Amino acid sequence: MNPRYAIGIDFGTESARALLVDVATGEEVATSVSVYRNGVITGRLPIEGEIVGLDADWALQDPADYLAAIEATINGVLNEGDVDPGSVIGIGIDFTSCTMLPVTADGTPLCFIPELRRRPHAWPKLWKHHAAQPEADRINETAGRLGEHWLPRYGGRISSEWFFSKALQILDEAPDIYAAADRLIEAADWITWQLTGVETRNACTAGYKALWSKRDGFPSAYFFGALNPDFARVIDEKMSRAVLPPGARAGGLVERFARGTRLVAGTPVAVANVDAHVAVPAATVTGPGRMVAVIGTSTCHLILGTDERFVDGMCGVVEDGVIPGFFGYEAGQAAVGDSLAWFVDNALPAEYRRAAEARGASAHELLAAEAAVLDPGESGLLALDWWNGNRSVLVDVDLSGVVVGATLATTAPALYRALIEATAFGTRVIVDAFDEAGVGVDEIVACGGLPGKSGLMMQIYADVTGLEIKLAGSSQTPALGSAMFASVAAGEAAGGYDSIVDAAAAMARLSDVVYRPNPAHRSTYDALYAEYRRLHDYFGRGENDVMKTLKRLRDDAIRRRSPVPVNSAVP
Amino acid sequence: MNPRYAIGIDFGTESARALLVDVATGEEVATSVSVYRNGVITGRLPIEGEIVGLDADWALQDPADYLAAIEATINGVLNEGDVDPGSVIGIGIDFTSCTMLPVTADGTPLCFIPELRRRPHAWPKLWKHHAAQPEADRINETAGRLGEHWLPRYGGRISSEWFFSKALQILDEAPDIYAAADRLIEAADWITWQLTGVETRNACTAGYKALWSKRDGFPSAYFFGALNPDFARVIDEKMSRAVLPPGARAGGLVERFARGTRLVAGTPVAVANVDAHVAVPAATVTGPGRMVAVIGTSTCHLILGTDERFVDGMCGVVEDGVIPGFFGYEAGQAAVGDSLAWFVDNALPAEYRRAAEARGASAHELLAAEAAVLDPGESGLLALDWWNGNRSVLVDVDLSGVVVGATLATTAPALYRALIEATAFGTRVIVDAFDEAGVGVDEIVACGGLPGKSGLMMQIYADVTGLEIKLAGSSQTPALGSAMFASVAAGEAAGGYDSIVDAAAAMARLSDVVYRPNPAHRSTYDALYAEYRRLHDYFGRGENDVMKTLKRLRDDAIRRRSPVPVNSAVP
Repeated sequence: MNPRYAIGIDFGTESARALLVDVATGEEVATSVSVYRNGVITGRLPIEGEIVGLDADWALQDPADYLAAIEATINGVLNEGDVDPGSVIGIGIDFTSCTMLPVTADGTPLCFIPELRRRPHAWPKLWKHHAAQPEADRINETAGRLGEHWLPRYGGRISSEWFFSKALQILDEAPDIYAAADRLIEAADWITWQLTGVETRNACTAGYKALWSKRDGFPSAYFFGALNPDFARVIDEKMSRAVLPPGARAGGLVERFARGTRLVAGTPVAVANVDAHVAVPAATVTGPGRMVAVIGTSTCHLILGTDERFVDGMCGVVEDGVIPGFFGYEAGQAAVGDSLAWFVDNALPAEYRRAAEARGASAHELLAAEAAVLDPGESGLLALDWWNGNRSVLVDVDLSGVVVGATLATTAPALYRALIEATAFGTRVIVDAFDEAGVGVDEIVACGGLPGKSGLMMQIYADVTGLEIKLAGSSQTPALGSAMFASVAAGEAAGGYDSIVDAAAAMARLSDVVYRPNPAHRSTYDALYAEYRRLHDYFGRGENDVMKTLKRLRDDAIRRRSPVPVNSAVP
Repeated sequence: MNPRYAIGIDFGTESARALLVDVATGEEVATSVSVYRNGVITGRLPIEGEIVGLDADWALQDPADYLAAIEATINGVLNEGDVDPGSVIGIGIDFTSCTMLPVTADGTPLCFIPELRRRPHAWPKLWKHHAAQPEADRINETAGRLGEHWLPRYGGRISSEWFFSKALQILDEAPDIYAAADRLIEAADWITWQLTGVETRNACTAGYKALWSKRDGFPSAYFFGALNPDFARVIDEKMSRAVLPPGARAGGLVERFARGTRLVAGTPVAVANVDAHVAVPAATVTGPGRMVAVIGTSTCHLILGTDERFVDGMCGVVEDGVIPGFFGYEAGQAAVGDSLAWFVDNALPAEYRRAAEARGASAHELLAAEAAVLDPGESGLLALDWWNGNRSVLVDVDLSGVVVGATLATTAPALYRALIEATAFGTRVIVDAFDEAGVGVDEIVACGGLPGKSGLMMQIYADVTGLEIKLAGSSQTPALGSAMFASVAAGEAAGGYDSIVDAAAAMARLSDVVYRPNPAHRSTYDALYAEYRRLHDYFGRGENDVMKTLKRLRDDAIRRRSPVPVNSAVP
């Protein structure tokens, strides 16, 4: 049989990346990146000649960038791979989440409508849009008060980043925009809609970000009505109860994109997915016991279980949310690569930068090399890795970073190592929480941007958790995972697979690199971890709320400085 | 009457600085600095062709550098001032303390003796020699066990930097050096001995560093014998019970230095003093209520009282130790300028350094300017200023620095401001301790290297303490104070003064600059101070000993790395 290919497109925060994959072998034949013209929209809307300001917590995107990326990246991989477009048997996409937008009944984004273009709430709210915290607080308070049964599935607390926090913010602040939206939809599902002409909803974003479960569906109208009477029928008025599992076929490629890409019209398109979650089978994980850690600016942890358990402080558990047939558990760390990048941008002395340049190395490479010389404990430092709050297991965005142990002899590499170690301790807290809840973690498969770049980080993770750390073979696991689900959407008869387990067996692989715990390091890290947990609970569980006081004093100071807030919701 | 002059010489850590002062007006006519050739001796002894290593905690000096500095600086001021050497009516000196050395009966430093020159214990131990911690621990333990009545005068705990810690280290580690020493003496008193040919002991170093008091003298032979039987008679065998108050005349200038300097032989030389303490009258303070803060790499706080009170965690209270007729109280902060210098050396991003260079400003000036833009609380940060342990009120060198509140938005100027604020909170802890013990603090007079350079720091100190901060008029208060005591040693009949109060009235003045508390800043700083105190007690009073655990793990790691210690005491 002639080679068959699948295309996976991973829509990220700043760009989209497509991968053309040989379905039989998993060989990554070609890749193509499209950088979004308007990137992450902060500060003001991207409208020429007019300033519409955005509050500091806002983060939007432009759907036109998504559409441009589809054609650019598909054409890119077809050209680079030099393959017959007819040999592409399926397309899959994944997206950041929750990134959501209001659209009309025909799928037109409200921000494409001239009279609504000046309205911030008409634009897609990017996952890291953090302005819906009051709505998240209200949802949590109301759910707790009403004893909503779905709350334990999300570790007892939902995030301002999630779907209904953002949807409710639109209703609160711009009820006319809410009214004008025929649909509220994840960007992931909107892309699939554009590709196929069919509106579908995927189980992954529905489950992890929109409180849906296979057994219970969405929360009740009674609950939504308790938040705002006009919100009671949000599911039936603005969404869809037809939620499809990963690997299902959403539809066939519409003529418009077939023309723009040379692909065959009707080529199967898989139901959409989330970037981190779709990486799981691409990291060879299709069953319990092996945690996938997608480590980049932040870290997302995913593990499969055979039954539903409630894990303290996890992000969520969704049946069929990652791999059909399993309960997919998610946890996360809000700042990992981000805190190291912060360090290099805000605390790296000039001589280290010069030394890195002299060696032709990046600042991170130089720091890692110097930090690797230190033994565990030798830095004399202990940090709490909460530079962007704590996602799991404390679920508290108002927590902040701590360094203990600084002396006049403390060096930049020691601080850098302490930051890495802090993220390792944070990972161990999550592993322990899963273990204690009966969701056993036997090894970690790392993927994402950092594992391949920092052997030091991976060795520290192994030493701190006591687990072997394996690396996914692909450096682009989300796009590979999307291509794998595309081959499942195509099905075996078309040269693909009938299940993601079969697809993973053929298309996914691990790297040869394995990081094994160094027994000589364990006792020191056990001692440091005990100290980490103690500070974690002291600062994180209400014994000393100094971090909240500091944020309040900071907010007060900023408010005194600019008493008139930037108008984030121009009427 | 023709003008009369006094010379004060301030022996610091890296250099000595002389000041030629008009006795009638306090005008500073000339100044001269002599940098020590061997500076601070660390790592190895300064012996050519031979490596005698020093452990990491060791810090020594070379007496030859002191002698060279005497002649160089006196000649320097006489030349620059172009005054008749016969018009100099007195000489006074001050020194870092406790800097002490073993000498023979005629005053020869043991390190000048060829067969002892290779022996680290034969050299002067600089104030910041920290290798005598085991001896300090033993002294504290023994004094507590025996109920020694002098212990409360030192806040309940003595330091590894002090006289008997260092003396006992010599006996412990090099008993033959101890035996060879006819005298153990403060470098301050050794200089005066060299200048006059007469061995004297001054009340300031005896009181603050050698457990002496005017009423009770030194601790008993019983106590010293409990530390080591061979230490029982240390006072009578190696020291002197004849302790003179500040301003007393030690003797007249010997012929040797008269020849070398053109001063008149027999010129009165005052009893020696300590650099921080001698600054008090030079900062116009000769009575209770006004705390002098000598703010440089570290900070020394001095305040006068009319009776003896025991203040928790202070460094010491000595009758006649600062101004005859008063009880002089001392407290301290171990790292102030040092922690800011650490920040600039170890955590300042390249772009700030470039911006400073572009403006022709120092890194500190640039950071202070950017930090000054922030309002109290706006950094979102809170730090504990323990980069070099805590001197007052916790008296614990094993404490270390903390930063709480870091986020991805935290900037270098915000961190810099938080470090300054932390030292201000540390000062307020000390002020509060004095106030609570009945030693009232009504205002602060700042001197030393930093106050004139950092208006931001002084304003923050005023805002945090709620006290007015005044600045000493002289930028060289120790040398000025030494010159003032020189004029007292000369006496009114010779054109000087009969008391330091009279000398201060004529020769000392304040700057016109006064920093007044900003009422708008007080409530925020009160809130932050409450958080500081809470963390201060949490980490500093045993509730969470993580800092000690971190130091122990660090020491373990270093020990595993180099199992054979550097031989610090070559036999």
